[in-house]
Amino acid sequence: MMKPEFALAIHGGAGAIPRSSMSDVQEAAYRAVLAEALAAGRAVLAAGDPALDAVCRAVLVMEDSPLFNAGRGSVFTHEGDIEMDAAVMVGRTRGAGAVCQLRGIRNPILAARAVMERSGHVLLAAAGAQAFAESVGLETAPPEYFRTEARWRQLLVARGAGTIALDHDQKGVAGIEGPKFGTVGAVALDRAGGLAAATSTGGMTNKRWGRVGDSPVLGAGTWADETVAVSATGVGEMFIRAAAAHEISARMRFLQEDVARAAAAVLEDVARLDGRGGLIAIDAQGRITMPFNTAGMFRGQLSSALDADISIYRD
Amino acid sequence: MMKPEFALAIHGGAGAIPRSSMSDVQEAAYRAVLAEALAAGRAVLAAGDPALDAVCRAVLVMEDSPLFNAGRGSVFTHEGDIEMDAAVMVGRTRGAGAVCQLRGIRNPILAARAVMERSGHVLLAAAGAQAFAESVGLETAPPEYFRTEARWRQLLVARGAGTIALDHDQKGVAGIEGPKFGTVGAVALDRAGGLAAATSTGGMTNKRWGRVGDSPVLGAGTWADETVAVSATGVGEMFIRAAAAHEISARMRFLQEDVARAAAAVLEDVARLDGRGGLIAIDAQGRITMPFNTAGMFRGQLSSALDADISIYRD
Repeated sequence: MMKPEFALAIHGGAGAIPRSSMSDVQEAAYRAVLAEALAAGRAVLAAGDPALDAVCRAVLVMEDSPLFNAGRGSVFTHEGDIEMDAAVMVGRTRGAGAVCQLRGIRNPILAARAVMERSGHVLLAAAGAQAFAESVGLETAPPEYFRTEARWRQLLVARGAGTIALDHDQKGVAGIEGPKFGTVGAVALDRAGGLAAATSTGGMTNKRWGRVGDSPVLGAGTWADETVAVSATGVGEMFIRAAAAHEISARMRFLQEDVARAAAAVLEDVARLDGRGGLIAIDAQGRITMPFNTAGMFRGQLSSALDADISIYRD
Repeated sequence: MMKPEFALAIHGGAGAIPRSSMSDVQEAAYRAVLAEALAAGRAVLAAGDPALDAVCRAVLVMEDSPLFNAGRGSVFTHEGDIEMDAAVMVGRTRGAGAVCQLRGIRNPILAARAVMERSGHVLLAAAGAQAFAESVGLETAPPEYFRTEARWRQLLVARGAGTIALDHDQKGVAGIEGPKFGTVGAVALDRAGGLAAATSTGGMTNKRWGRVGDSPVLGAGTWADETVAVSATGVGEMFIRAAAAHEISARMRFLQEDVARAAAAVLEDVARLDGRGGLIAIDAQGRITMPFNTAGMFRGQLSSALDADISIYRD
């Protein structure tokens, strides 16, 4: 395969996506948002702009859609709040920014990017992260903006069952019409050879005690260096304990594994820790891999040489 | 070197420790706490108890001392609050627990451990972390308990200068009598061959916006697996961007580097990112390395075969 001039992959969450319960109309709605996210990223990359811009643009589209568990449409905490996590990382500089337990900011991915570019720090949490995001002029949004009825019913079911459920855990969506899945993420290679990764999530339905998953933990759910860019989705705890995203880089750098082999090995390790999920990864040659050990993962890819390709299920 | 039956290393922070400003009495006070922490850890390991118990006991001693920037004696945020971060990790299971932006809990390291053992999660943040720690019965403490006059004056100086200062940054302690340094941490090998790591910190003086450093980021400031256990101290942002603690493990596992070489290589990488600091690491054979690229690092080590050895400066 010739190296493409640019390439992009996105995910909208992995999980026990119930094919049977997804109507043609619903599937078309998901595909439409994924296509829009890919198109937004492609426009950036085709113009020769940085991979960071592309992954942020793609994630923005998914954050603004109520269909995915990030930004608008995020799941509710046990207390009925919405607290979001996000991270970005740039391969060449290993510049990174992340926020956790963020409230009231329309696009958490822009807050993560502002942390990287304007705070002098890497990770900001909770009320402080919100204050920082507001101080740099990011758009705020009231609770009603984030709230979707499906997510609210999901919380009521989870609270009733006493479960702390991953968004894409089938048990967590019992009794809810249609699937409402997913952490979102993007990875890209730009025309200048730069890599970047971005991840954004609302976390787990009915989460308590300020639980934070792997998305804002650099090296776990999000990572980029000169070798590879990675964004993960799934049971965050296991991705943290596997240092999943950084381990893919280490295997590629030190064992000379290709991106597909390294990602598969790490997902096996996550599974050994009893973790479910998936990830997207892209190397410096624009090769993309999108493995998952769940029934499905909302995902899409394109490159300068290939049209957008969108998938949900395993086959 | 024969493999010892058990071994332990601790640190109390790395930085521009001003030898000139440290009186004999002050140095003796630091050494006494480090010796007490080592003795507490040794008692656990000699009794054949797990490395996790040993690193928590050693860190507890330093958290309870006002001399170190963890627990009592933590630095103040810009707003005059004390917000602490901590993490633990167990090598054999890669079980892990962490808290960030924790207030009002006397020993954050016990909160991190409780997250691992009792929450089903890995990372809890802010008010939720505090509520969880209280729910499992951990000892609370009022603001006065944590407050030390030296830290308060340090904040006033930093606020006056408009600097967000690392505790062990010399600029941050200008005008303060005596050094007041340090994140604390411990790593250990137990008689059963188990490794564990623990790190606890108050973060940076005058920190704003809920800044979180590398200590609670598994893979960055804290890591343990079957190969190595690591606890880092320094400019946390650079340790996160280097995935420092996990990179040491990866170099050992994939390049067959020994622990000293792997740690040195990673600290060089941190320095390339313009990061200062140090770390302690122990491998499965009980070999310990304690590199730092600052003027000093409060540190100590012992093993079943060696008496406690405590150092502060480079030579």
